[in-house]
Amino acid sequence: MSTETRDGAGMRRGIEESNRRFMESFNRGDAAGAARDVYTADATILPPGGAMVQGRDEIVQFWAGAVEAGIRRVELTTVSLEPMGDGACEIGRGSIGLADGQQMEAKYVVLWKQEDGRWRWHVDIWNS
Amino acid sequence: MSTETRDGAGMRRGIEESNRRFMESFNRGDAAGAARDVYTADATILPPGGAMVQGRDEIVQFWAGAVEAGIRRVELTTVSLEPMGDGACEIGRGSIGLADGQQMEAKYVVLWKQEDGRWRWHVDIWNS
Repeated sequence: MSTETRDGAGMRRGIEESNRRFMESFNRGDAAGAARDVYTADATILPPGGAMVQGRDEIVQFWAGAVEAGIRRVELTTVSLEPMGDGACEIGRGSIGLADGQQMEAKYVVLWKQEDGRWRWHVDIWNS
Repeated sequence: MSTETRDGAGMRRGIEESNRRFMESFNRGDAAGAARDVYTADATILPPGGAMVQGRDEIVQFWAGAVEAGIRRVELTTVSLEPMGDGACEIGRGSIGLADGQQMEAKYVVLWKQEDGRWRWHVDIWNS
C-alpha cells in the first residue's frame, strides 16, 4: 500500500472519486456499470424491504432491477468518514430521483475497502 | 491492547458477550441500561424512518422511546463478522417482538470498537 492511500487526505480523495464515478455512471443511465465499478468482488448490500445480496454480479443485477423499478438519479453526500484499519466507514445521505419525478431521501452506511488499486464499497446498507 | 483482544477468537468472544448483555438487559425491560452499556460515547445510530441520532445519551433516549412505542424483545444473530483495524464490521439479523405480539424481522450492520475495555457499537444501522 502506498503512502498516498494510507494518509487520511488520500483516503478521502479516493473515496470521493469513487462516489463521483458511481453517480456519474448511474445518472447517465448505466446503473449496471456503476455498480460493477464501485463494489468489491465479495461485497454485500442490505436493501430495505428485501433480502441481503452478496457478490458483485448479483449486486449489479439488483441495481439494474432498481432502474427498471423507477430509480433514475442518485446523489450521495458524505456526512462522516472514519478510517478503520486499511478500510473506512462512511455515513452519508442519499437523494434518489424517481422516473415519475418524485424524490426520496435516504441515509446510508458504507464500509470501504481498497481492491485492485481503488476504494470500493464492501458493505452497503441504507434506509429511509 | 492485549493479545487477547487482537486475536480473532478474542474479538468474536468480546462481541458475542456484548450482544448477549444487550439482549439480556433489553429483554428484561431495561432498554435504557442496555443502550447505555453497549454504545460508544460518540456512537451514531441510523433508525429507519427517522433522523440519525448521535451520542450515547441521545441514543439511550431513543431506545427508551422505542419501548414506549411497543418494542419488547430483541434477538440478534450475527451473520458475518469482519475485523477492520482495531474494530470490526458485523452483519446480522434482528428479530423484534412487539407488545401486541407481532414479530418484525430486520437486518443490520454494526461497526464495533473497543472502548473502556469492552467491545461496543459505534455505528448502528438497520432496515426491514
